[in-house]
Amino acid sequence: MTAASASETVPSPFRTREQRAEEREAKRLAVLIAAVRMFNQRGFHATLLEDVAASLGISKPTIYHYLGNKEQVLLECIALGIEQFQQAIAEAQAVPGSGLDRLRHFLRSYACINMDDFGRCVIRTGAEPMSAEGARIFRDNKRGIDSALRAFIEEGMADGSIAPSDPKILGFTLAGALNWPARWHSPDGDIGADEIARQMVDILTAGLAPRA
Amino acid sequence: MTAASASETVPSPFRTREQRAEEREAKRLAVLIAAVRMFNQRGFHATLLEDVAASLGISKPTIYHYLGNKEQVLLECIALGIEQFQQAIAEAQAVPGSGLDRLRHFLRSYACINMDDFGRCVIRTGAEPMSAEGARIFRDNKRGIDSALRAFIEEGMADGSIAPSDPKILGFTLAGALNWPARWHSPDGDIGADEIARQMVDILTAGLAPRA
Repeated sequence: MTAASASETVPSPFRTREQRAEEREAKRLAVLIAAVRMFNQRGFHATLLEDVAASLGISKPTIYHYLGNKEQVLLECIALGIEQFQQAIAEAQAVPGSGLDRLRHFLRSYACINMDDFGRCVIRTGAEPMSAEGARIFRDNKRGIDSALRAFIEEGMADGSIAPSDPKILGFTLAGALNWPARWHSPDGDIGADEIARQMVDILTAGLAPRA
Repeated sequence: MTAASASETVPSPFRTREQRAEEREAKRLAVLIAAVRMFNQRGFHATLLEDVAASLGISKPTIYHYLGNKEQVLLECIALGIEQFQQAIAEAQAVPGSGLDRLRHFLRSYACINMDDFGRCVIRTGAEPMSAEGARIFRDNKRGIDSALRAFIEEGMADGSIAPSDPKILGFTLAGALNWPARWHSPDGDIGADEIARQMVDILTAGLAPRA
């Protein structure tokens, strides 16, 4: 029996560098999911890292080890949410058809992310618990999402798929309607987030095309 | 000179019962306006009655005298906001025409109230700072506004002026869009609340009528 065939049959108790990195990533993500749910439910101030740790059967220093203090945990949660919004922007930009088609695609993703753990945290969290630098990055990122939404609207007005109006007010109206579920939607409700997003976006975009 | 003609020319330094009641009402309202603006700007917890009193050049016990403690002041502010919403419901119910006409009328008032001091306070305040009884009344009142909105929608679907869809999701979508300005609209902005309300309601209701 060669060494190679032995390593094929007896699994090594030593993990590879890759396995260790994967495991570390999985642990970080588990902490972030437990934390973001508690932030969304109780609010940032009322959430204790002890309780987050207890919900995972670990200790608070373990969270410090993987992520840092409570503000750092929040910033990570928000970074993940922002990343989802940015991905949705990139996906919608690649959709063929009119500006209205791309806007609809983006709005549906935007609504779904708002009802999901990390997106909900982006929408519900104010900049107050953050350091000045964290708050600045947070506001820049949120402004980036607003600008992308407005760009889809302006594109649709330019190609004639959306009737002319004030793009800023239209953007606030659409985003406002789709931000609200971050406050009331319960993942245990009878209608799934996808279906709510579809119906809301249909309602919001039914009147956007110019009258024939 | 008779006593009667004297009282016509020399104003009495003693106020009538009616004048005293009016003055008391004006003072109460001044305190409520100063308080609600601070609640909306700083949040309930960060608002100190001392600061509200100082902004009016009076002392905190004077506020206690006219209104009571901070929770009582908040409850009065919310009661005034709720009253405005209820008046808007009654006004819209009296509008002739279709259900969609009444819905549009209500939505415009709803949006304007949301951008005004007391309505903004109703939308931005959670039930947390209230006693159990206060929170129950607050939730009942908010639910009453939601039900009235849904009744306008259902009426419009029944008379054919609004295309059929899920009235609950439609109600949340419309209210959500119009709640959002309570968070971002500044009374000092370039566009007045009336004009923002008109544009938002036009956007939101443009697609509600059934397709011909």
